[in-house]
Amino acid sequence: MKNPELHQINLLGKDEQNRRLSALRAAMNDASIPCALFHNNANIYYLTGRVFRGYIFVDLLHEGVLYLLRRPSTLHHSDEGSLKLISRFSDIPTAIAEYHGEKPGNIALELDSLSYSDTIKLQKTLETESSSNISPLIRRVRSVKTERELEMLRESGEKQTLVYRHIPELYKEGMTDIELQVEIERDSRLHGCLGQFRIAGDEMELFMGNVLTGDNADTPSPYDFAMGGQGMDPSLPVGANGTLIRPGIPVMVDVNGNYTGYMTDMTRCYYTGELPQRVAELNKLSADICAELASMMIPGTPASSLYERAAQMAAEAGMSDYFMGHRSHAGFVGHGVGIEINELPVIAPRSKDILAENNVIALEPKFVIPGIGAVGIENTYIVRKNGGEQITNAETQPVQLS
Amino acid sequence: MKNPELHQINLLGKDEQNRRLSALRAAMNDASIPCALFHNNANIYYLTGRVFRGYIFVDLLHEGVLYLLRRPSTLHHSDEGSLKLISRFSDIPTAIAEYHGEKPGNIALELDSLSYSDTIKLQKTLETESSSNISPLIRRVRSVKTERELEMLRESGEKQTLVYRHIPELYKEGMTDIELQVEIERDSRLHGCLGQFRIAGDEMELFMGNVLTGDNADTPSPYDFAMGGQGMDPSLPVGANGTLIRPGIPVMVDVNGNYTGYMTDMTRCYYTGELPQRVAELNKLSADICAELASMMIPGTPASSLYERAAQMAAEAGMSDYFMGHRSHAGFVGHGVGIEINELPVIAPRSKDILAENNVIALEPKFVIPGIGAVGIENTYIVRKNGGEQITNAETQPVQLS
Repeated sequence: MKNPELHQINLLGKDEQNRRLSALRAAMNDASIPCALFHNNANIYYLTGRVFRGYIFVDLLHEGVLYLLRRPSTLHHSDEGSLKLISRFSDIPTAIAEYHGEKPGNIALELDSLSYSDTIKLQKTLETESSSNISPLIRRVRSVKTERELEMLRESGEKQTLVYRHIPELYKEGMTDIELQVEIERDSRLHGCLGQFRIAGDEMELFMGNVLTGDNADTPSPYDFAMGGQGMDPSLPVGANGTLIRPGIPVMVDVNGNYTGYMTDMTRCYYTGELPQRVAELNKLSADICAELASMMIPGTPASSLYERAAQMAAEAGMSDYFMGHRSHAGFVGHGVGIEINELPVIAPRSKDILAENNVIALEPKFVIPGIGAVGIENTYIVRKNGGEQITNAETQPVQLS
Repeated sequence: MKNPELHQINLLGKDEQNRRLSALRAAMNDASIPCALFHNNANIYYLTGRVFRGYIFVDLLHEGVLYLLRRPSTLHHSDEGSLKLISRFSDIPTAIAEYHGEKPGNIALELDSLSYSDTIKLQKTLETESSSNISPLIRRVRSVKTERELEMLRESGEKQTLVYRHIPELYKEGMTDIELQVEIERDSRLHGCLGQFRIAGDEMELFMGNVLTGDNADTPSPYDFAMGGQGMDPSLPVGANGTLIRPGIPVMVDVNGNYTGYMTDMTRCYYTGELPQRVAELNKLSADICAELASMMIPGTPASSLYERAAQMAAEAGMSDYFMGHRSHAGFVGHGVGIEINELPVIAPRSKDILAENNVIALEPKFVIPGIGAVGIENTYIVRKNGGEQITNAETQPVQLS
């Protein structure tokens, strides 16, 4: 490896890691959780700045952490805390007891992402019968980004914006939705998009993004995304289905913004020929909803009130039947983004989430109109004291494909 | 949707679905499992030919199945069995009791893929405290492909081969590993590659594939793939790292073969300038190991004996130190493929798997040499009465990039 510092297991540096650990420990303390074991790739990346295979043990007694490293075994560390190479599962409890000073009574585990089989195996190894669930707690902690994370999100937003501005040049007459998508994928990758689309929950699947045109947008999908689409194959029934791009029919582009390990989420509409007045108006309604909701993004605001305002604006425009889908309606108008695409807070009617400063939220008030397809935009915002800071800055009006 | 038959929840047709269900029921009967509930996308796709969100209940009393459908709610069915739309979790037990005739005592669940939290929620809903694990059993059933599945795998193999033959034309002088990879990704996608790379186990991550050149191949990764690589970012530390492609240094290409919902797995080496004799010889050793192991692919053969023969051939050539990696060694030389990339059987020293007719196996005896990088090939085979049928048929010798 060219840069020997990359062998460090903690790529965040001591200060940044401590910021994240302090937030985590405060939340653990509030929840009376004395220690926790992390294994999920998204959480390991959050706590170290890299993905490795193994575990991270965090307790309230130490300042650092205990790394239980399986692979790659070439990593080392220079901070507080401790690193232990584990080759067998049974190495874990001894390493923890040595570090912790005694055998912990209850170690919280990531019960929302660990499989049942792996949980039982871990509990047997750790000689405990029940475990608290650390998943909701670290999910909450991760929803408030540090300045370093915000920088990475801004960088993703800038690169994604750059690529979106290329889209008119990527189009050639006679293209289908999937052909345009492939060119956007290539341009994204050449500009550093990592491709990887991390989603919590193994029901959720998507490859790189979603390009929808015409009535395909009105095909419901099994997945809990804002928009559906038939997809190219019933093994992955979502997104582009090979529909020809036609004059006057909008093309909605919602393609992967993972340029830094942190994802921004942006959607824009494109068209060929003449843009129907109705599409222009509807796109403006979507942009107006985004702007209105962004102005409401003040710490302390209930997430549900943002959803209600969006639904109200859609209703006032007489567009409730088409809001967030037509044959099938998505139950949210926005979601947290970061290492995963479906983070907290959730902007939905029954959401209990309260906005906090430095939440990062993608808003996507979209419409699906029979005979026309999907219309609307999506932007990613940082929750700031005075409202949302927009970090995906491509022009909001529909852009003509050249 | 253009084709109304696509609304059928069972896209396999009655006969093909019954073939799969018969194999599943025979295995359930052998294991004394009276009924099981499936939720995992790969298993739902296996049992219906499509992905939907919900559950499939299978018992030994009925010929068909009970579909518990959440989304898309537009699906219907015309076979035996029954379809029930569920909007709430609590709709599940009543629907099952009605279909099954009584409340089942023990419903086996996919404990290897369901999260602990979801398992507990299901068990509470089903009013059962323990569940058998159906995951290993359906994994075993899925490892023996039907003729229809074999056709889809052959089709993937043909398309993947076609794309691999384009690789020399995709190269331009001065390209890096990732730049070449992006062009291969684009060509794959334009030829129908779905992109999606299904892997069992949420520790495993990869985007589209792996293009390795030079010493980058010797960087161990956290993932349990045959080869490593630093990757473009520590959030996904595997594969290409931006290394310039240089004369005399091989470029190993191992890119996604998912053209049908079923994946083939193929690796080939490419080069610019002159091919060092040592690389040519090592690549031939890899191809010879593949041919030898393919000839051993007879039903009834222990998977471990294939691994042993491969390791023996590597040792006889004095290449043990470089076999399946150098700084870090993969513990296998092959693996089942199909809907997921890591299916059964596993070709590893301690594998207990016994080859069965119509297993589909990717063999990848590869070498990593310091100063040179990764060398070797990978092919996908169907286990036939007389040995392996090769379904990835690009030329095995290293090909010059034009």
